[in-house]
Amino acid sequence: MREPAVSVPRRVLIANRGEIALRITRACRLLGLHSIGIHSEADASLAHLRLVDETLCIGPAAASGSYLDAARVLRAAELTNADIIHPGYGFLSENAGFAEAVEQSGRTLAGPTAAIMRLMGDKISAKQQMRRSGVPCLPGTEDALPTDLSEAQTICDAIGYPLIVKAAGGGGGRGMRVVMTATDLRDAIETAREEAGRAFGNPSVYAERFLQHPRHIEIQVLADRQGNAVWLGARDCSIQRRHQKLVEEAPATGIDPQAIAELGERCANACTLMGYTGVGTFEFLYEDGAFSFIEMNTRLQVEHPVTEMTTGIDIVREQILIAMGEPLSFTQADIRTQGHAIECRINAEDPENFRPAPGKVLSWRAPGGPGVRIDTHLYDGYVVPPNYDSLIAKLIVHGTDRTDALNRMHAALSEMQITGIATTTPLHLRLMNEPGVREGGISVHYLEALMRKSAP
Amino acid sequence: MREPAVSVPRRVLIANRGEIALRITRACRLLGLHSIGIHSEADASLAHLRLVDETLCIGPAAASGSYLDAARVLRAAELTNADIIHPGYGFLSENAGFAEAVEQSGRTLAGPTAAIMRLMGDKISAKQQMRRSGVPCLPGTEDALPTDLSEAQTICDAIGYPLIVKAAGGGGGRGMRVVMTATDLRDAIETAREEAGRAFGNPSVYAERFLQHPRHIEIQVLADRQGNAVWLGARDCSIQRRHQKLVEEAPATGIDPQAIAELGERCANACTLMGYTGVGTFEFLYEDGAFSFIEMNTRLQVEHPVTEMTTGIDIVREQILIAMGEPLSFTQADIRTQGHAIECRINAEDPENFRPAPGKVLSWRAPGGPGVRIDTHLYDGYVVPPNYDSLIAKLIVHGTDRTDALNRMHAALSEMQITGIATTTPLHLRLMNEPGVREGGISVHYLEALMRKSAP
Repeated sequence: MREPAVSVPRRVLIANRGEIALRITRACRLLGLHSIGIHSEADASLAHLRLVDETLCIGPAAASGSYLDAARVLRAAELTNADIIHPGYGFLSENAGFAEAVEQSGRTLAGPTAAIMRLMGDKISAKQQMRRSGVPCLPGTEDALPTDLSEAQTICDAIGYPLIVKAAGGGGGRGMRVVMTATDLRDAIETAREEAGRAFGNPSVYAERFLQHPRHIEIQVLADRQGNAVWLGARDCSIQRRHQKLVEEAPATGIDPQAIAELGERCANACTLMGYTGVGTFEFLYEDGAFSFIEMNTRLQVEHPVTEMTTGIDIVREQILIAMGEPLSFTQADIRTQGHAIECRINAEDPENFRPAPGKVLSWRAPGGPGVRIDTHLYDGYVVPPNYDSLIAKLIVHGTDRTDALNRMHAALSEMQITGIATTTPLHLRLMNEPGVREGGISVHYLEALMRKSAP
Repeated sequence: MREPAVSVPRRVLIANRGEIALRITRACRLLGLHSIGIHSEADASLAHLRLVDETLCIGPAAASGSYLDAARVLRAAELTNADIIHPGYGFLSENAGFAEAVEQSGRTLAGPTAAIMRLMGDKISAKQQMRRSGVPCLPGTEDALPTDLSEAQTICDAIGYPLIVKAAGGGGGRGMRVVMTATDLRDAIETAREEAGRAFGNPSVYAERFLQHPRHIEIQVLADRQGNAVWLGARDCSIQRRHQKLVEEAPATGIDPQAIAELGERCANACTLMGYTGVGTFEFLYEDGAFSFIEMNTRLQVEHPVTEMTTGIDIVREQILIAMGEPLSFTQADIRTQGHAIECRINAEDPENFRPAPGKVLSWRAPGGPGVRIDTHLYDGYVVPPNYDSLIAKLIVHGTDRTDALNRMHAALSEMQITGIATTTPLHLRLMNEPGVREGGISVHYLEALMRKSAP
């Protein structure tokens, strides 16, 4: 039988919810692809479900029985005859087991292979791969610390203190201990191992030098299935609370562009070397002029819009085209960055204590005008369910320079109106005028120090 | 008495309504200026009135007793102690008498002087000024046609046919007659004179060569009070119905960028020569590779956002800074354009017959995501009054190139939801996929021909 003259339209299943499901839906519509929206019983009124070509309820409100249930997501892909699955961020997006099951079902995940996901998911193997590719890492152990505590002590004394003991199997602060002096090491290793075993089913830990006031700098990459990889500039995501980013910006201010370009080249080369495909982010700590690799996020990130605003490249569109097997339509030399972009994550949270504040949005008035972009699934009357992440909107602005962008963000935040639920907007409004933020170059501890200072 | 060390904050009165009043409010908030919103009795619920520092109701719903009443607007400026008046577009924005009264009251109009407004308002003196500045004009009469019809015939025969007889005192198609052959001239002059006298109180008419299939191309300029003038690229606004623009884009596709640059330089030079200040637009017809000046708009235009999207320059911010006496902070060499932008005017009109469709907006869901900008005063429950212009939203997109921008506009239009009133959205959706629009370079008659062809 001959192949059809016209290629069969691709069918994309969007395995996520909220703003990112809407973002992916928009990219599918732009590309003229058939889009399939899946949702939990709590999410039938999500904004993107009005725009997709097909919808399917896959399970109960609890994510464990819906968005996190690999078998149900795969079953939905079968039922709807999807050939591409876009996992978004969170949920199953970095689950190598899910990626493998997608591969085995003959479908394509918008992401790297399961093997790469596994390689990058294990912090020790990821770091080894980075060292091989010339991506700068912190001084530290090459392998997991030996179980023998005296041997471990010898190795760690050679690294020097302060150092940090980290779980190989996962992040988010679990299985992690900062060790200030040699005498505290053994206790730290033992508790970190115990925690890591409980949290990730893998008690392996490793050690590396601890930086006291680093910035969080990351490099966005795009790599196609033909072996082409490009980097799209650096982001600064240092405004964090409990390892959760709240404000992100591009480019990274106050760092030599030449140093960023060298780092970017190394990241792009690392992608080619390991056969990475799709979008990805290399995360670094930056202190005293040096970058140190932390981990790679093998998926689309919440903060991708600031890179889109400065480069003019639609990252989600490119990600889907790569999943469809298309080569990148541009080279590194074609990429130009312009101006400065900032993103504020608007969460349905009490801005004082960050407690989730789900509920009904009584009225929603979006800011607009020049340089303002909003990615949100909000609308008048939308009910924010209590079951998921509290991110309800991303407000992104683009200005001619960093000061202009900060001013535009403040004006846009102060114009935005969300009634019915509490949001982090007041905190963002405050941050845009804080002297440290205005000056730039603050460390990842800035926000928590600021909150402590202003606590009653 | 010594001057205060810190300059007194400026107070800006926004003498307009709808989306442009919101646009100006945003620029004032960005600049940290005190903003004053005036409104008619029909307009108390306009979106920008929630954001300005002060509001004042100045008269009844009928524009003649409110937005068009120069005395009431001036009285509002006095009462609120405004030192800058921003007229927006339409209403009093090109009224030289109003500009003069503002000057005499010791206030500043965000615009050129009354003298320049008068010079450009009279089509004959505007054309003379353009000829002096090297801005290309159509072959035609230098002065008003003589009242003696035989003399007029001799002059017009020398220009050649077809030609167009136009009113000196105003535009919008009134006092305008196309003359295909010499025998039709005398009747055409007589009826045009009569119409012009009635419409503008000035029966003067002039004649120039008539172009059969021109495009509408225009050059945006910015000129400060220090004598610096720059041009910000060209726009193509050829999709029109009854001289009303419906879709605008930047840059102008298919025209040699070098020819545009030469034209832009001539426009900027013309500004310097006549002492023009503020924002302005030189409008041209373009046919067979030649530009011909039609008129200058001495105010902000509806379509300014497409230029903002391609240059990254906030035109309204610059306009207010110029009114404050600030010199331009950039030169022509600093201006870079990137990608392609398109604007669709969303009017509250029946898309079949363009009849106004005022009423209550039951639900409004804005498109969003990368490259999408919306300038609108719409919100859920807003009632579009029947008293004014039917423009309710401007949807603007930016893409890497023209095809990308057309695709993004189609996706954004199809995502946008306005229920409760009819809008021009279906027509725009259709236009984005019309072969002529896709190809580009259509003439100002394209839309009317298309509508005739598809009429039942």
